[in-house]
Amino acid sequence: MAYHVHALSSSSPNSTSTMATQGFQFNHTMYRVKDYKKSLDFYTRIMGMSLLDTHEGGDFTLFFLAFDKPGVNETAEEKKAGKFSREGILELTYNHGTEKEEGDVYSNGNSDPGRGFGHIAITVPDIKAACEYFESQGVNWKKRLTDGKMKNIAFILDPDNYWIEIVESKLRL
Amino acid sequence: MAYHVHALSSSSPNSTSTMATQGFQFNHTMYRVKDYKKSLDFYTRIMGMSLLDTHEGGDFTLFFLAFDKPGVNETAEEKKAGKFSREGILELTYNHGTEKEEGDVYSNGNSDPGRGFGHIAITVPDIKAACEYFESQGVNWKKRLTDGKMKNIAFILDPDNYWIEIVESKLRL
Repeated sequence: MAYHVHALSSSSPNSTSTMATQGFQFNHTMYRVKDYKKSLDFYTRIMGMSLLDTHEGGDFTLFFLAFDKPGVNETAEEKKAGKFSREGILELTYNHGTEKEEGDVYSNGNSDPGRGFGHIAITVPDIKAACEYFESQGVNWKKRLTDGKMKNIAFILDPDNYWIEIVESKLRL
Repeated sequence: MAYHVHALSSSSPNSTSTMATQGFQFNHTMYRVKDYKKSLDFYTRIMGMSLLDTHEGGDFTLFFLAFDKPGVNETAEEKKAGKFSREGILELTYNHGTEKEEGDVYSNGNSDPGRGFGHIAITVPDIKAACEYFESQGVNWKKRLTDGKMKNIAFILDPDNYWIEIVESKLRL
């Protein structure tokens, strides 16, 4: 199959969409979590993300997380104010009380019914070191580096069993 | 409720996770699409993203998309090689033949069974201008700016009915 990468890309500098979509950013991805305490512990203490902001919505609470970047939104006030002005934000929605329910509350998107969403991916400078670190933290695995055919990617599971792909930043497909 | 934002964030410079997670990036979000031609047209021509790379996996094909950023991966070769070294990538998985099936193939995550994933969000410099542009392109809406209580966000639908939130970059919650 031929996919005509260049013909499909919007790189033409004078196209309507290039003008109208100037400054657009893929800011965040949102999924729901059963127990915000477990999720925040996982994404901050283990994954190393910063909690930028929280938002109370009445019967739900939103949590905005991201990896810190040198020179970008370094203070707590900058993190909060700048959360819609950068890429790489993870928004977790906690519907109050779900942590009291038995078993899984949400679908991770990878089995029917409910298949659609697949995973988020974290890229890392050194995948072996990262996987050794995750092992030391006792994370749950969907696929260790040594499992299956693809020896250059791993999948860990977050507290709701959402898949998190681990990929080395310099991987070439 | 008190969420102890600062206590939960991993901003302590000497913590184990800060050392081990140095250089981690939230690189991409993956979901499955029924008809890659419709999805690529939507994400490139209407949304203004660039197709960075494709990957053939036998009975599936992966498409990597992102918004161009000034000075970042400007050539086709840089876009392809650098796709795991930046944030804000959308990965679409096309399982060959799904476009021939009747009706919706995938769940968008927002109704049971299958609730979990919620949406991706695109932040824009001017939300009124962006929504007028989407209207001119004939996109499908989940929520126009004028619908419902929240007058400062909108939701459009992609060809698989995944929700895309539109938020102004300078919004303060």
